[in-house]
Amino acid sequence: MIGIVIVSHSAKVAEGVKEMAEQMSQGRVAIAAAGGVDDQTLGTNAERIFEALQKVYSPDGVLVLIDLGSAVMSAQMAVEMLAEEQQAKVKMSDAPLVEGAIVAAVEASLGRSLEDVNKAAEAASTMRKIL
Amino acid sequence: MIGIVIVSHSAKVAEGVKEMAEQMSQGRVAIAAAGGVDDQTLGTNAERIFEALQKVYSPDGVLVLIDLGSAVMSAQMAVEMLAEEQQAKVKMSDAPLVEGAIVAAVEASLGRSLEDVNKAAEAASTMRKIL
Repeated sequence: MIGIVIVSHSAKVAEGVKEMAEQMSQGRVAIAAAGGVDDQTLGTNAERIFEALQKVYSPDGVLVLIDLGSAVMSAQMAVEMLAEEQQAKVKMSDAPLVEGAIVAAVEASLGRSLEDVNKAAEAASTMRKIL
Repeated sequence: MIGIVIVSHSAKVAEGVKEMAEQMSQGRVAIAAAGGVDDQTLGTNAERIFEALQKVYSPDGVLVLIDLGSAVMSAQMAVEMLAEEQQAKVKMSDAPLVEGAIVAAVEASLGRSLEDVNKAAEAASTMRKIL
């Protein structure tokens, strides 16, 4: 089963999204939060993201969801800290953070592949909320 | 200037998104968080959303961003608790929560109309993060 890392500029957002995604997937998926420079300061921190990647890594892969494009560089730095064979199994998603994480957690809990989970998460960007 | 309400199933997510959006708009926009059933329990709470709406209401309008479609009913209940002339000035957005809130806060800080802020926020769903 793939793992999921939630990267946000806000530690609260990352932690809250993790809790929501865990509830939706009934705790069956390894999900880690990597938010903020630290718990108080908005921003991103490659070291925190690296620790989150290590926590949920499995050979099935890891999907990384991020809040804003400006977090991509920190996430990339974190990926490069992994062993080379692990790096190839980490995918960064273009999905919207909260909506994508929920979909990803459910799909991952069904045992879907990294590619399929990412596709489903990215499709969350076009789901209508207001009907 | 319009106000912004952040509705999430998670109090942490709503509070964190509010902090990010406030930083991006340099504190010039009235933004309120309405997350969770309470600070510990995931879910939504019409009373909390109503209080948030009252806190940021202005005749220029209020944009409500929500995390998942299942929050729409609580948000609608909250809107119906407002005075009738206020209800017409509240718009629920289809934008992705985090990404939309950041864009909305910046656009609102520039004095854009409710319609224009919502359009910009909804367009955030198609912005690429990974280049």
